[in-house]
Amino acid sequence: MSRTPDTWILTAHCPSLLGTVDVVTRYLFEQGCYVTEHHSFDDRLASRFFIRVEFRTQADFDEATFLAGLNERTAPFDMRTELTPPGYRAKVVIMVSKADHCLNDLLYRQRTGQLPMDITAIVSNHPDLKPLADWHGIPYHHFPLDPNDKPAQERRVMQVVEDTGAELVVLARYMQVLSADLCRKLDGRAINIHHSLLPGFKGAKPYHQAYQKGVKLVGATAHFINNDLDEGPIITQGVESVDHAHYPEDLVAKGRDIECLTLARAVGYFLERRVFLNANRTVVL
Amino acid sequence: MSRTPDTWILTAHCPSLLGTVDVVTRYLFEQGCYVTEHHSFDDRLASRFFIRVEFRTQADFDEATFLAGLNERTAPFDMRTELTPPGYRAKVVIMVSKADHCLNDLLYRQRTGQLPMDITAIVSNHPDLKPLADWHGIPYHHFPLDPNDKPAQERRVMQVVEDTGAELVVLARYMQVLSADLCRKLDGRAINIHHSLLPGFKGAKPYHQAYQKGVKLVGATAHFINNDLDEGPIITQGVESVDHAHYPEDLVAKGRDIECLTLARAVGYFLERRVFLNANRTVVL
Amino acid sequence: MSRTPDTWILTAHCPSLLGTVDVVTRYLFEQGCYVTEHHSFDDRLASRFFIRVEFRTQADFDEATFLAGLNERTAPFDMRTELTPPGYRAKVVIMVSKADHCLNDLLYRQRTGQLPMDITAIVSNHPDLKPLADWHGIPYHHFPLDPNDKPAQERRVMQVVEDTGAELVVLARYMQVLSADLCRKLDGRAINIHHSLLPGFKGAKPYHQAYQKGVKLVGATAHFINNDLDEGPIITQGVESVDHAHYPEDLVAKGRDIECLTLARAVGYFLERRVFLNANRTVVL
Amino acid sequence: MSRTPDTWILTAHCPSLLGTVDVVTRYLFEQGCYVTEHHSFDDRLASRFFIRVEFRTQADFDEATFLAGLNERTAPFDMRTELTPPGYRAKVVIMVSKADHCLNDLLYRQRTGQLPMDITAIVSNHPDLKPLADWHGIPYHHFPLDPNDKPAQERRVMQVVEDTGAELVVLARYMQVLSADLCRKLDGRAINIHHSLLPGFKGAKPYHQAYQKGVKLVGATAHFINNDLDEGPIITQGVESVDHAHYPEDLVAKGRDIECLTLARAVGYFLERRVFLNANRTVVL
Repeated sequence: MSRTPDTWILTAHCPSLLGTVDVVTRYLFEQGCYVTEHHSFDDRLASRFFIRVEFRTQADFDEATFLAGLNERTAPFDMRTELTPPGYRAKVVIMVSKADHCLNDLLYRQRTGQLPMDITAIVSNHPDLKPLADWHGIPYHHFPLDPNDKPAQERRVMQVVEDTGAELVVLARYMQVLSADLCRKLDGRAINIHHSLLPGFKGAKPYHQAYQKGVKLVGATAHFINNDLDEGPIITQGVESVDHAHYPEDLVAKGRDIECLTLARAVGYFLERRVFLNANRTVVL
Repeated sequence: MSRTPDTWILTAHCPSLLGTVDVVTRYLFEQGCYVTEHHSFDDRLASRFFIRVEFRTQADFDEATFLAGLNERTAPFDMRTELTPPGYRAKVVIMVSKADHCLNDLLYRQRTGQLPMDITAIVSNHPDLKPLADWHGIPYHHFPLDPNDKPAQERRVMQVVEDTGAELVVLARYMQVLSADLCRKLDGRAINIHHSLLPGFKGAKPYHQAYQKGVKLVGATAHFINNDLDEGPIITQGVESVDHAHYPEDLVAKGRDIECLTLARAVGYFLERRVFLNANRTVVL
Repeated sequence: MSRTPDTWILTAHCPSLLGTVDVVTRYLFEQGCYVTEHHSFDDRLASRFFIRVEFRTQADFDEATFLAGLNERTAPFDMRTELTPPGYRAKVVIMVSKADHCLNDLLYRQRTGQLPMDITAIVSNHPDLKPLADWHGIPYHHFPLDPNDKPAQERRVMQVVEDTGAELVVLARYMQVLSADLCRKLDGRAINIHHSLLPGFKGAKPYHQAYQKGVKLVGATAHFINNDLDEGPIITQGVESVDHAHYPEDLVAKGRDIECLTLARAVGYFLERRVFLNANRTVVL
Repeated sequence: MSRTPDTWILTAHCPSLLGTVDVVTRYLFEQGCYVTEHHSFDDRLASRFFIRVEFRTQADFDEATFLAGLNERTAPFDMRTELTPPGYRAKVVIMVSKADHCLNDLLYRQRTGQLPMDITAIVSNHPDLKPLADWHGIPYHHFPLDPNDKPAQERRVMQVVEDTGAELVVLARYMQVLSADLCRKLDGRAINIHHSLLPGFKGAKPYHQAYQKGVKLVGATAHFINNDLDEGPIITQGVESVDHAHYPEDLVAKGRDIECLTLARAVGYFLERRVFLNANRTVVL
């Protein structure tokens, strides 16, 4: 699971076809790559193939040459490949509103290196969490929402994402619905944490809904956003048991830990190149 | 948790009022009862009080006298009390269709004494599980469903419940919706196991629904039936994590264990007098 | 579980005897106290009684008068009582070495009010975590260990505990063994987090021990310290599943979350007056 | 996870070396095998490679030819390969004493096809569980222990294993220590369930040990036997939380479910060819 400092990650996916595994593993062998972990899955209902390989390289390994050769070889399979070098740190933008537990958790995991990412900016529709960002030395952008011009605010958000070269946007309890336009632009690279076991309790105030229903388990769902609210592909979910003595505010409090853990796990999977979109589902290798 | 062989259980509930705890504990003390476990909860949103006490008695303890005195004392509180003697075994009717995992599990737990109940009858709309019932020496009633006269079948079911003096009916994967009439008759004493984390995936084929949604957790919900399908008060829920490699049939297979465990836990809570109805929710002490 | 702002907590324990529940509940009733939650347990093997009650009071409630009366009434039972007023915040000293995850977690939970405590001081044998303490505005005492005079360092620690009036000391990954003398002084009020499922893997480097044994579950144990290393009464434990791909450093990383959660839960139980010592075990109501 | 009816499983392991993945995947491709799932792991501390592949074959696939070719190709790697055909059912002998919960569970899972095995015999040092075996139509051998000649009893056990061609022996709460000789004969193909979270509470009466220590979690460990008692390589572990109210007999009762589930999971992993011995640890792919 932990990798030596010279470990690369190769991921790929394509339509199901005889030879998908072999085309990858043979090329790796020919290039002198030493495979330390290999996981592939062929989804027989979706007819789609997914592969993730960790490998170490020879001294004379050249990334560009390797990729060029790989893509030539895999072209007949319509395979989309991604290569992640050792020590790579993804650039990430975090969006928040007022609740700080998920942000605090992500900042801690960045600072200690547990999540190999660089948070390039924190964007919020409220000013409240600026001190927390300041202490970690991360730019904080307060973009208030103009109810008459929501697109304007989203353009500013997108500008930050582009300017900082972020490949991932994390909605760490950002309490606004993104427009269909922004969802499309961030397709497959924006992760939201919803505080319920989706598809149960979609929409607002899920813990209050959960209290009304008298459930004995509450949880959180980390998912890619799409333009169907709280319906995006699920990456991972977490759960906690509760009982009759949990009033709505207790569910809210209890949920914070599981929200943090579930979101951090999803972000970790993404950064380690474990997550693949598979129509409205995900494959996590 | 385990009780000495001379332990009684007293449960009660009533509207919230000053003195609800004292009226019970003082009476127990006056009657020389030795309290070994006491749990009470006053629901401040529902304004309702719930109490469960385990106690041992003096040699001259008389159940009828005790109850008469208790009810006189608690009458001003509009308190409904229930007293369960040591070694009490509830009479239970189990309803099944074709799936046998929950039935097999309940029969095992009855046989070994883990669930202190006497299964007085097994009722099914199919003949398939008769051999299993026979091996355990329990009467098996095959009441096929006449699509033109569903009430007739339900009358036969209810007749068995009444004839055998069953206080609890367990729907152990009984795949028919009960009529509003039967639900009303069995209000608060019929437990169903639904194979999803309600309120997610209500209705038919929940595991297939779960697969479509790509959830990463599946579960089961044990709940009292009411006439709003799959909306009855939840007693307990269980959960298992799954991944992309679980096809619908894998979810079905994976779910069996958690269905068994969740249903057995709910039945155990009921038999130990831990479950209280609290409007559309439950209190489990 | 959550309490209205006028809720008191009363706890007590004493040898088992007829009347222990009644003496408490009757007095509460006579004083006009409204009980919202009551949990008592009589340990039949240890012959010891434990009780925890949450209640609201009348306008004219006087703490001193109440306690005097209570203690007079409960004296024949040799009952030790403790009364915690609404909004009470315990004073807590935290001890750390170099690892910051548990400290960071506790500071966050203090800041957000999730743990109702005032951290009066952070004590360490290393200077590393001072910046974190500074940001939260909490005094940080760096007391290096003099291998030739360990008692001197412990006297300085104890001085801080006494000077700040701390009722609880939390060893948040403090990597030194306390002397028998200090253990005795902190008996019943110092909580340690050990990074294994005690009693498995006592002593140093438990994750490395766990790797050698090839376990498939790792965990953490929060326990009261006593002078038998890693043998103090256990308050709560947490667990995570791992597999063959977890090298020792992965177990260390994986364990951090469960250490934080387990320690925070134990501290929360303590602050809510849920934890009772019961010889070398605990009762958690 | 579920497989189409024409799916083969290939597993292999060998010392770490460049080309281990390629030699397998290339051969599969050349033989026209369609890989549906592939998982390989190279243990950098043990310097050992493990691989498990599921694949479908062409119409003209011949097992013997395939294996001969594979073994020729992989010989330079000192690779040990195993090929499991579609629909394969392993022959299994189960050993029990008096407790029936694990046996009952395994019999149920065999009967319903959840565990693809044929239980060829049940062996016990007591006669008690014969009726259960009879109902399932499985030969039951009562081999009492002669304290003066334990080897004689073990020879009879081993005779049954050999006569029935069993590849796996499951100790489903068999309460006798096997001799070093028998352990060696069954090396890597005998799975035991121990009712504790090993290495905690080795030896006799682990739940009573657990009660004495006041642990808040109990569990079960399924492991290969070896001649160091309760020290064999762990396959999987399960866990349940408990509290102060669990007396030793409650721990015993609570543990039964987790013992059943943990043992069934281990047996399932074995039957699906997921378990590899890796010195005193296991790899589970």
